[in-house]
Amino acid sequence: MRLAALLALVGLSALAPGAHAQPDPSAPYAEAAARITEAALADSAAYDRVAHIATTFGPRLSGSDALEAALDWILDAMRADGLEGVRGQPALVPTWVRGEESATLVTPHGEFDLPMLGLGGSVATPPEGIEAEVLVVTSFEELTERADEAAGRIVLFDVPFTTYGQTVQYRTAGAAAAAEAGAVASLVRSVGPSGLSTPHTGTMRYGEGIPEIPHAALTIEGAEWLHRIQARGERPVVRLTMGAETRADRMSRNAIAQVTGRESPDELVILGGHIDSWDVGQGVHDDLAGCVVTWEAVRLLHDLGLRPRRTVQVALWTNEENGLRGAQAFRDSLGDRVSHIQLALESDSGLFDPVGFGYSGGEGGRELLAARVEPLLEGLLKTDADAGPAGITEGGGGADIGPMMRDGVPGLSLRTDNGDYFVYHHTPADTIDKLDPAHVQRAVAATAILIYVAAEMPERLPHGTSASN
Amino acid sequence: MRLAALLALVGLSALAPGAHAQPDPSAPYAEAAARITEAALADSAAYDRVAHIATTFGPRLSGSDALEAALDWILDAMRADGLEGVRGQPALVPTWVRGEESATLVTPHGEFDLPMLGLGGSVATPPEGIEAEVLVVTSFEELTERADEAAGRIVLFDVPFTTYGQTVQYRTAGAAAAAEAGAVASLVRSVGPSGLSTPHTGTMRYGEGIPEIPHAALTIEGAEWLHRIQARGERPVVRLTMGAETRADRMSRNAIAQVTGRESPDELVILGGHIDSWDVGQGVHDDLAGCVVTWEAVRLLHDLGLRPRRTVQVALWTNEENGLRGAQAFRDSLGDRVSHIQLALESDSGLFDPVGFGYSGGEGGRELLAARVEPLLEGLLKTDADAGPAGITEGGGGADIGPMMRDGVPGLSLRTDNGDYFVYHHTPADTIDKLDPAHVQRAVAATAILIYVAAEMPERLPHGTSASN
Ligand SMILES: [Zn+2]
Ligand SMILES: [Zn+2]
Repeated sequence: MRLAALLALVGLSALAPGAHAQPDPSAPYAEAAARITEAALADSAAYDRVAHIATTFGPRLSGSDALEAALDWILDAMRADGLEGVRGQPALVPTWVRGEESATLVTPHGEFDLPMLGLGGSVATPPEGIEAEVLVVTSFEELTERADEAAGRIVLFDVPFTTYGQTVQYRTAGAAAAAEAGAVASLVRSVGPSGLSTPHTGTMRYGEGIPEIPHAALTIEGAEWLHRIQARGERPVVRLTMGAETRADRMSRNAIAQVTGRESPDELVILGGHIDSWDVGQGVHDDLAGCVVTWEAVRLLHDLGLRPRRTVQVALWTNEENGLRGAQAFRDSLGDRVSHIQLALESDSGLFDPVGFGYSGGEGGRELLAARVEPLLEGLLKTDADAGPAGITEGGGGADIGPMMRDGVPGLSLRTDNGDYFVYHHTPADTIDKLDPAHVQRAVAATAILIYVAAEMPERLPHGTSASN
Repeated sequence: MRLAALLALVGLSALAPGAHAQPDPSAPYAEAAARITEAALADSAAYDRVAHIATTFGPRLSGSDALEAALDWILDAMRADGLEGVRGQPALVPTWVRGEESATLVTPHGEFDLPMLGLGGSVATPPEGIEAEVLVVTSFEELTERADEAAGRIVLFDVPFTTYGQTVQYRTAGAAAAAEAGAVASLVRSVGPSGLSTPHTGTMRYGEGIPEIPHAALTIEGAEWLHRIQARGERPVVRLTMGAETRADRMSRNAIAQVTGRESPDELVILGGHIDSWDVGQGVHDDLAGCVVTWEAVRLLHDLGLRPRRTVQVALWTNEENGLRGAQAFRDSLGDRVSHIQLALESDSGLFDPVGFGYSGGEGGRELLAARVEPLLEGLLKTDADAGPAGITEGGGGADIGPMMRDGVPGLSLRTDNGDYFVYHHTPADTIDKLDPAHVQRAVAATAILIYVAAEMPERLPHGTSASN
């Protein structure tokens, strides 16, 4: 063991002692990686935990009993796993409660239910609802042009999905824009590429000094229905009823556990996902599976007796969806120690067939890590994914590790072949039946290998300039 | 023209005068078919009518104002089209009204909404709902084996979709089986191959002398959720609330119009679909598009001045979904004239890319018709469809033409490449955005050609023995 460690330090592999000319920088980690892979592919422990949490506690919106009950269970399980430093790190989170809600198309020929979901943070309607003619627009620009038609109406943004980043702005900012034009409520076409009468919820914001009006998502089908009525020269009339309520902030927690570093315990490899979700479905791809995969990666190191040089710490952040209070509390607790972080990894883009990792950080860091890790991921990654080339590619990060990354910490994201992610995202269909146990196994293996190498390699990964996210 | 007609009568084509040896039996109809095809592919009239009716009147459940308003509009439009014999044929239909309804999973950690749809004909729960432990079974056989566990419980049939015929029995007969075992309510996994939190409604029946218990469909996701809870040794608890109500029968109508036959007006070529639907979505594939395609086929003959030998009559039947009262009234009104029917065609399997027609009738009839029609459908049919070979194949029919077929009338169905039909069927997602205008155009052309030939050909198609459906 001492010889192997020595050889590793000089970049020579104990497993391939003849390779003098071009030492393989992954070689010192090959034996551990093989053990990790074998263990990760041997059972369904991580999948089983996702399934158990998903179907026991259901969705886990910030401020809910379900989230706190899930956190209690997780912290108990982390302790039972034998992990170190298990704790709930407090964070005060918003408490938005959906209440009863519905949208009804009031046509000349009867009333029809329009499946919908109110958007997180929206105010309520009066108890009797808001009934008004609907103005359908397809962009903020069109609303500006037709602003004189918006007063007293419900504005519907019927914007077909392009990318999440482009389309989501109507969900987040639609109410403010509609209210500014005098609308009494606002609706968006659900932010997703396709659906089967499947509404998508998500967070929204009001504007400073602009009236707060109720804001909800219709299904793609519902939005197109109203649009077609308008297109033939009629005005659809909708009655929107929402009992939404924002209650006092409530104490939640980030769930944290670690394997303490053998030589440099103050240097941290951080990884995790967000344990909160929206209040529909089970929040499996967003983001319970990401949480459990990162947790399981740390548990595997512990189980295999792999205690690397640095501390490997898993953090399941609370309140990513509508506040990022968990991420901020985590960052605040680090203080100046942020300079001791080797890297931070977040898995929050759905848990499909793993493709690799995205990397953002100081110059040369990606190459340093990739040279050591990529050879060890052989056989674990989907190589012909629509999601791009397998391996460690440029560009990564995540909302919860954003505050650290803005201070220069190298940030990684787990990349999976997630072309269907926004079909399920924030819907009642983000449930355990959409998760493939084999994807979970391979994601655990790849993540555990990456964090093991990052925690064990003698080299520090270079921090970037601030705001490198 | 007189030469062409003469040639046509002796089976020689005016378009291919050299073909003496083997006369093409389709030749006499080729010119008309070409005109039909050109007209059908030239505009979007049929699609536009589907879109207008779907988005103006919405779903059209028997007994609803929406159905009767849609029928008024259709009858007016048939008259405006210049069709003959336009009339509403009365039929008394059941009036089932859904009311407010919900299913809530009452776990140890909070309450979660389970998207659902009550099933047509179900009784209500008490106003406060029925809250009980759920027994999940995967077959009638398993329920029989576990009958001692069913008393006082809600039985859920979590039966994955195989074929509609196999799986739908749990929707139709599940409540009776569950009640017989002492259950207080029953649930089924929605009858469809896949979904995105998409519940499917449909009709159900109670058993003679068996208590009538509330019966509803959960989504696939919801059913699997409860099943997983049971599989780990716990009992899911659900609170089911349904305000369903069966009111007094109400008068509805079949919408009928025709092009009266030139020589044998008493001989009928009948075609149509059912104008009623379930009370969610817009009932576009089931079966508004089928209705409009058959109607448009008749309108095209009229517009093109094609008045064939026999009468071509379109019938948009009411109450297919939960009673077949329209079909029965139609059959009753024919009396002995059923022997004068050349054929009856129904389009009620979704309106996707047309593949051909299925045929059931007396021996040799399919060959007689196919030899005349198939060459004229060149270019209109999808030839590599999963739905089978293009053309007129053995085996056809439909629920609304069933009573005629049982008296020997040759029955046809329009076949389309409908592999996705049961994804949308009876759901809020059966909406206009799922319909392809090009499919409608080709279906109109193929249907109009088939009925023109059937109405024009000198030969009678042989009737079958009774119950040939
Ligand atoms: Zn997320
Ligand atoms: Zn139907």
